[in-house]
Amino acid sequence: MDNIKDEILRLARSVKAASGILAGAGTAQKNSALSAVAEEILANRDAILKENAVDISKGIRKGLSAAMVDRLSLDQNRIDNLVSCINDVVNMKDPVGEIIEMKTLPNGLKAGRMKVPVGVFAVIFESRPNVSVEVSALSIKSGNGVILRGGSDAINTSRFLCRLIRKGLVRAGLPEDCVVMVDNTSRESVLHLVKMRDYVDVVIPRGGPDLIRLVEETSVIPVIRHDMGICHTYVDESADMQMALNICLNAKVQRPGVCNAMETLLVHSLIAPSFLPEMKQIYDQAGVVLRGCEKTTRLLPGIMAATPDDWKTEYLGLTLSVKVVDSLDEAIRHINQYGSHHSDAIVTDSYQRGMRFIKEVDSAACLINASTRFNDGRELGLGAEIGISNQKLHVRGPMGLEDMMAPKYIVFGTGQVRS
Amino acid sequence: MDNIKDEILRLARSVKAASGILAGAGTAQKNSALSAVAEEILANRDAILKENAVDISKGIRKGLSAAMVDRLSLDQNRIDNLVSCINDVVNMKDPVGEIIEMKTLPNGLKAGRMKVPVGVFAVIFESRPNVSVEVSALSIKSGNGVILRGGSDAINTSRFLCRLIRKGLVRAGLPEDCVVMVDNTSRESVLHLVKMRDYVDVVIPRGGPDLIRLVEETSVIPVIRHDMGICHTYVDESADMQMALNICLNAKVQRPGVCNAMETLLVHSLIAPSFLPEMKQIYDQAGVVLRGCEKTTRLLPGIMAATPDDWKTEYLGLTLSVKVVDSLDEAIRHINQYGSHHSDAIVTDSYQRGMRFIKEVDSAACLINASTRFNDGRELGLGAEIGISNQKLHVRGPMGLEDMMAPKYIVFGTGQVRS
Repeated sequence: MDNIKDEILRLARSVKAASGILAGAGTAQKNSALSAVAEEILANRDAILKENAVDISKGIRKGLSAAMVDRLSLDQNRIDNLVSCINDVVNMKDPVGEIIEMKTLPNGLKAGRMKVPVGVFAVIFESRPNVSVEVSALSIKSGNGVILRGGSDAINTSRFLCRLIRKGLVRAGLPEDCVVMVDNTSRESVLHLVKMRDYVDVVIPRGGPDLIRLVEETSVIPVIRHDMGICHTYVDESADMQMALNICLNAKVQRPGVCNAMETLLVHSLIAPSFLPEMKQIYDQAGVVLRGCEKTTRLLPGIMAATPDDWKTEYLGLTLSVKVVDSLDEAIRHINQYGSHHSDAIVTDSYQRGMRFIKEVDSAACLINASTRFNDGRELGLGAEIGISNQKLHVRGPMGLEDMMAPKYIVFGTGQVRS
Repeated sequence: MDNIKDEILRLARSVKAASGILAGAGTAQKNSALSAVAEEILANRDAILKENAVDISKGIRKGLSAAMVDRLSLDQNRIDNLVSCINDVVNMKDPVGEIIEMKTLPNGLKAGRMKVPVGVFAVIFESRPNVSVEVSALSIKSGNGVILRGGSDAINTSRFLCRLIRKGLVRAGLPEDCVVMVDNTSRESVLHLVKMRDYVDVVIPRGGPDLIRLVEETSVIPVIRHDMGICHTYVDESADMQMALNICLNAKVQRPGVCNAMETLLVHSLIAPSFLPEMKQIYDQAGVVLRGCEKTTRLLPGIMAATPDDWKTEYLGLTLSVKVVDSLDEAIRHINQYGSHHSDAIVTDSYQRGMRFIKEVDSAACLINASTRFNDGRELGLGAEIGISNQKLHVRGPMGLEDMMAPKYIVFGTGQVRS
C-alpha cells in the first residue's frame, strides 16, 4: 500500500514539474510532439496489435462479454482513427495565451482574462485503450500535464501507447513526464491519486457508477464527472411519423454501446397506437428488445414488462425501455427524475412544446427533432473531446480544449490605487 | 446528530423544490422580490440593529478581537450599503435563458448553448452578516435556490435578515424557500450539508483554512473555494519610485482585513536600498509593522526578522512581510510557492518583465502597475459578486451572476440522424 502511494507521489511530482515547462511551450513545439506521436504509432502498428492481443486473450480467458472485448480491441482501422484524432488536434487552434473580454474601466485600468492551462489532469478510465491517446493529445495541445490511470483490462495496450506518446514528447524536446501512467490498476491507486492536491488540479473519472461514486466520495481535488447516459427520446403527439421512426432507430441502434445512445423511449398516448406498432417492426429487424410500461404492453402484446429499475438503467446494448405518457409535463418529469441529465430529445411539430422541452429538461444537451447521438464534441463542431461531462460546473456536455483552460484576470495599470 | 441531519435534509428538499419555480420565474418577478427585500430591510433598520447588538455583545463577552467584532457589526451606513447592493443586482442583466455561440453545422443542425441556473447553492460563511443579503440577492436574480449556513458569531443578525429576505420573496409571489438558513452553527451541520448531493449542486465555503479544508475533505458535491488571499506586490528594479510607494501603501492599508490586501512585499535588490527606507517611513505613519528577510533587516535595522511561517501567513491586519529578491525569477518562484494564487501585482517599467509576470504567476489575478485591491467584481466591472474564487475550475477570481449559470447545449434539428 505504501509502495503504491510513494509511486503515485513520485509520478504526480514529476508530471507537475513537467507541466510547468509544457505550459510555456509554443504551438509549433507542441504540434511537433503530436506529429511525432502519430509517427510512432504508425511505425509501431504491429507491436501495438501484439500488446493488444495479450489484453484480448486475457479478457477472453477472464470471461469478458463480447461487447467488453470489443471495447478493448484495436485493429488497423482503429489505429488509423487514433492517428487521425491526433492530426485533428494538431489542426485545432492553440488556446493558450488567448486574451478575452478586454475592457477599459472608468479609472483607466485595462482588464481582461488570459487563457492559461489548468495544470495537471488525472484521468481515470476503464477499458478503452484509445482514451490514453486522445486524452494525451488534448493535454499536450492545451499545455496541461496528465496522469493516466487506465483499467486492468487494456493495461498492456495502454502502457505501450503511453510509451510511444512519451517518445514523441522527447523527440520534440519536451519532457516525457508531461504524460505519465499509473501502472497499478488497483482501487488503492485511485484512492491515493485523488489525494494528491498539491500536484493534481482536476480528476476526471470516465467509467461506471461505482468508479464515479468512489472518486466523488474520496477526492479532495475538484472532479469533472464523465458519467453514464440514460438518454430519452420523447415522441410528441404532433411528431412527424417518419421523422420519429428515423430518429428513434438512429438514437438506439447506430451505436448502442455509448453514453449518448437512447435508453428510454417516451411516447404520447395520442400517437402511441399508430407509432409504437410500426416502430416495433423496425426495432425487431434491428434486434432491439423492448421492455414496456403497462400501456405499452397493451399496445405491443408479447413484450416484457418494464420494472421500476428499467427507468434508471443504462443498457449500453440493444435493450430499450418504453413508456407511454399523457402529456409533455409527464415526459419532462420522467426525464428529470430518472435520466442522468445527459442527452434528451423531443420529436415534435409544436413550437411551444419544443421550446418548453429545451428549457425545462435539465440535461447537458436538449435536442429538438434530432438524434441524441449528436451530443458529441466532433458533431457539435468543438473538435476532439476529452469526454462528455454530465455535471453542471465548469463544463457541461462535450469537454474540449477550451475547457482545459483556467482563464486568469490580467490587469494593465498606470499606477492606479483604490479609493 | 440525527435531528440535525433530518432538519438539513428537510431544508435541502424544500429549497430544491422552490428552486425549480424560481428557475422559471421572469425578470420582472425576480426584480420585484429583490425590491421588496430592500424595502423590508429599510423598514426594519432598528430591529436589524437590535439583533446585531445581541451578536456584538455576545462577541465582546466571548472575547472576540476588535477586528472580529467589526466584521460582524452593522450600522446605518452598512445597512444602506446592503440596500444599494440589492439595487445594483436589480439593475444587472438577467442571465437566465440567454443563448450563446449558436452556429449552423454542415448537416443543417443549429446548435448553441442556453444559460440556465445551476440549481441550488449552499454557502457556508463565517461572521459577516451582510453575506446573507448579498448572496441571496445574487441567487434570486440568477434563478438559483440557496442554503445559507452562517457562523455562530452573527447568527441572530443573519437569521433576522434571512426572515426579511423570505418575506420579500413571498410579497413577489415566489416561494419563501428559495432562500433557507441552517439554524444550527455546529461543525456537524456542515458535515451533513456537504452530503446532500440529491438537492445541492454546489458548495461554496467562504472562510478560513480550517473551514475550507473540512469542506474539501468531506464534500461529495462540487466545491468552489473562496479561500484566503496571500497577495504579493513585487517592486521591480525598473519601477517608478513614486508609483511603487503609492501602490504598496494602497495595497496594504486601504482595507487590510480583506482577501485582496497585500501580505508580502517583494523588492528587487537593486532598488531596495533607496525604496525600502522611504517606504518604511510611509508605513510607519500608517501603523504598518514590518517583518523582513535577512537583507531587509540589514536595510531597515530595528524591524523584526520574518520566520518561514510569515511567507505563508494571511495577517488580515497591519503586519507585512518583506523580502528582497535578486531577480524576477526569484519573485515569481516565491509567489507561486508561498502565495494563495489570489491577487499579485508587479510594479515595473520593463515591458518584458511585466508580460512575463502576468504569464508566469499562477494566480486568479495578475496586475501590472496597479493595487492588488482591484481584484474585486465591482472594480473589474462584473457587478456584485458572491465571493472571489481561488480555485481554477468553473470560475477563477470574482464570481458574479454569470458564474451562477450552467449553460446547456440546445440543438434545433429538422430530423437529422447520425451516420
